[in-house]
Amino acid sequence: MAASISLSQIRDLMGLPGEGEGDSGVVFSRVSGLDDAGPEAVVFAQDETALAKALVSGAGLILGPLAANGGRVAGVKNPKYAFAVVGRWLEGDGEGVIHTSATVGAEAQVAEGTSVGAGAVIENGAVVGKHCSIGSNVTVYGCVRIGERVLVQSGAVLGAMGFGYVRGEDDCYVRFPQQGTLVIENEVEIGANTTIDRGALGETRIGSGTKIDNQVHIGHNCLIGKNVIIAAQVGISGSCVVGDGVVMAGQVGLGDHVTVGPGVILGGASGVFPGKTLEGNGQMFMGVPALPLKDYLKSTARLRRLK
Amino acid sequence: MAASISLSQIRDLMGLPGEGEGDSGVVFSRVSGLDDAGPEAVVFAQDETALAKALVSGAGLILGPLAANGGRVAGVKNPKYAFAVVGRWLEGDGEGVIHTSATVGAEAQVAEGTSVGAGAVIENGAVVGKHCSIGSNVTVYGCVRIGERVLVQSGAVLGAMGFGYVRGEDDCYVRFPQQGTLVIENEVEIGANTTIDRGALGETRIGSGTKIDNQVHIGHNCLIGKNVIIAAQVGISGSCVVGDGVVMAGQVGLGDHVTVGPGVILGGASGVFPGKTLEGNGQMFMGVPALPLKDYLKSTARLRRLK
Amino acid sequence: MAASISLSQIRDLMGLPGEGEGDSGVVFSRVSGLDDAGPEAVVFAQDETALAKALVSGAGLILGPLAANGGRVAGVKNPKYAFAVVGRWLEGDGEGVIHTSATVGAEAQVAEGTSVGAGAVIENGAVVGKHCSIGSNVTVYGCVRIGERVLVQSGAVLGAMGFGYVRGEDDCYVRFPQQGTLVIENEVEIGANTTIDRGALGETRIGSGTKIDNQVHIGHNCLIGKNVIIAAQVGISGSCVVGDGVVMAGQVGLGDHVTVGPGVILGGASGVFPGKTLEGNGQMFMGVPALPLKDYLKSTARLRRLK
Repeated sequence: MAASISLSQIRDLMGLPGEGEGDSGVVFSRVSGLDDAGPEAVVFAQDETALAKALVSGAGLILGPLAANGGRVAGVKNPKYAFAVVGRWLEGDGEGVIHTSATVGAEAQVAEGTSVGAGAVIENGAVVGKHCSIGSNVTVYGCVRIGERVLVQSGAVLGAMGFGYVRGEDDCYVRFPQQGTLVIENEVEIGANTTIDRGALGETRIGSGTKIDNQVHIGHNCLIGKNVIIAAQVGISGSCVVGDGVVMAGQVGLGDHVTVGPGVILGGASGVFPGKTLEGNGQMFMGVPALPLKDYLKSTARLRRLK
Repeated sequence: MAASISLSQIRDLMGLPGEGEGDSGVVFSRVSGLDDAGPEAVVFAQDETALAKALVSGAGLILGPLAANGGRVAGVKNPKYAFAVVGRWLEGDGEGVIHTSATVGAEAQVAEGTSVGAGAVIENGAVVGKHCSIGSNVTVYGCVRIGERVLVQSGAVLGAMGFGYVRGEDDCYVRFPQQGTLVIENEVEIGANTTIDRGALGETRIGSGTKIDNQVHIGHNCLIGKNVIIAAQVGISGSCVVGDGVVMAGQVGLGDHVTVGPGVILGGASGVFPGKTLEGNGQMFMGVPALPLKDYLKSTARLRRLK
Repeated sequence: MAASISLSQIRDLMGLPGEGEGDSGVVFSRVSGLDDAGPEAVVFAQDETALAKALVSGAGLILGPLAANGGRVAGVKNPKYAFAVVGRWLEGDGEGVIHTSATVGAEAQVAEGTSVGAGAVIENGAVVGKHCSIGSNVTVYGCVRIGERVLVQSGAVLGAMGFGYVRGEDDCYVRFPQQGTLVIENEVEIGANTTIDRGALGETRIGSGTKIDNQVHIGHNCLIGKNVIIAAQVGISGSCVVGDGVVMAGQVGLGDHVTVGPGVILGGASGVFPGKTLEGNGQMFMGVPALPLKDYLKSTARLRRLK
């Protein structure tokens, strides 16, 4: 929201008590790595080792461990988190420019403060909330409703028809109606070339705060919870239910009608067969089919012990 | 082809005998789920349980089990299939509009009744048949011939150069010529952000009626049969041959020069090593490397039995 | 660079000694397969069997085994390689046309001889070197520097923000700053709908001569070496280091902070867990987690031997 930030503002932002040294109207204009940090830069040091390196950099302010508070160091509970928060604050909400080469349908609604990149297409009927960023060459079909402060990176396709077919007696397939909607709640972020299909008859929904990496596929009628993390190339088949706070590593695959309970963690390239349910807040699953971590480790250890 | 359909027309469409009750010129304008079904809506009920729910909805017509024929219920052999057929009929063939922001080469041929979405690119030399729908931001290279009633969803790339390189003695790779063609037969449907490469010297071919989901990759010189189902994120390497009626679940991978016989079913995330052949109409394969289902189940059971 | 090539030029190109028969000013205008080869065409025959077929084709020149040199046959060490080199030479460097529907930022630099396809977007700040080919609907973010003779096929997204988030105590995620760069060195080739993210604070780098297939994902801060082969749908998480000459088959997955030593070969769909290192020039690894080939084969054999 601003091009610079003071230590007082940082303390407010992080809910930190007291007044730190060095806060005499000095402002910082960017976050950076150590290599190119000048007096205008905020860096972070997650522990004592990192702090020693940060102190010999030219950084104006170091977000560091609580115990190191003082001088150039602002001590916070989680320096990396504080660094991300300051970076996000300095980034602001974007300029809200619709590129002249974008196609925004006359009956599409794009709220103020939302940017639409070159070559992007927002079809008639689509609704995009405030302060969103829609990247270049993105397609938003007409059945999509997007909340506020949503980021969609280049090449993503939102609201295409899902993959539902019914086989006839002549062995030919007829498409099941794909006339539902796709709802993307606030603060969702979506990676490049990701595809999320609309519901067949009902809706597909992505809960608020959920972050989705590049080349993820989410099928029709999925209900994805809030603050879910979905890494690159994950594939979620139709009609899955994914609870709040779930974490899926790269290339995970869910068959259709899978339920993943809140807080479950799925390891890289693990897979869940159609119709199955995984439960356990904080429980990690691995493998194909996905097993609780200790069972997975046991089975791979067994295999290696065999002669 | 029309904005409404009568029960007589439905009976004709489904090849049903006789005249049902309730067919007195009443027409229906859409298919829908139960929740928002009014007198203008056709719904379906696959069995008796579903039928009980459908009967308390406001739907004008219920495609239901044969035994339940009468009143608001049109009894058919496969209600879900009938529902899909009616939905597809009501959807019609599209308006055949080429968006002003699409780029259609002066030497490309786009037949009547074909729609081309915003930002789509049809290069010189490409041929697109009648009543196709080419989505927004799709790219069709000049080497591509597309049949009739083909659906290509947004962001798909058809006819790019395949991945063929020859290594020199200097460890550098030189691209093998990629100057062939891609032929897409009638009624093929292709999902968002899917990529299908042209042949290197010969052709890549997708047989009629084949349905391909989002983010599928099909390499150069593949020959895909008719009425094949390919779910999301499947990867098919170069020079594979896939028979008619094959079904591949999500994230399946085929190495190059693989042959999959007609009617084979590949389970989710299964993989076939280069040069292998799988045969068996209706036979399901699972795992990496893919084994017949009973062998796969045996091997996973063995692993769990070990102490 | 030219529309035709003589046998003398081919001999120069391949570093071949002597003057072959049949080199009397005759020129060839294209490479082709046997089926449609006329006197203007160069074909190749990798061995004696292939040569017998090639000799009955109408090809003007056959690149064949050394021992077969003479007449229509130019004997070379590796006929397929020679064929690729001749084909690449005939293809030339492209026309250097920027399509009128492309969006090239006023502060982007695109060097002479570089083509930019329809609907492609080159953002302000991006630098693209000489004789590149940027396909239709490609997006190049402003943080990207591309070398010379780089090929980027349609729909690829270069330089998007990486997937880095920090979780707060309120279970919400805040994006870690993604303000670094992406450097693509000379002669890199990138497939359709592939995505390569910029560095978070530092850089992502793709070494010269590396070839990347369709739908590959490369995360933030990865350092990919020279002459690396990355087949379709490979996923490389953030901060991986991949050595020169590595080969990755389709659908391979690397967790974050993985190191793959020079010359390592990863079999199809194999996976490496976060933080691991694989070493061994010419060593093949398979499976999830990836094991040296002989260990992988042993473990799958054990499993089948069990009763």
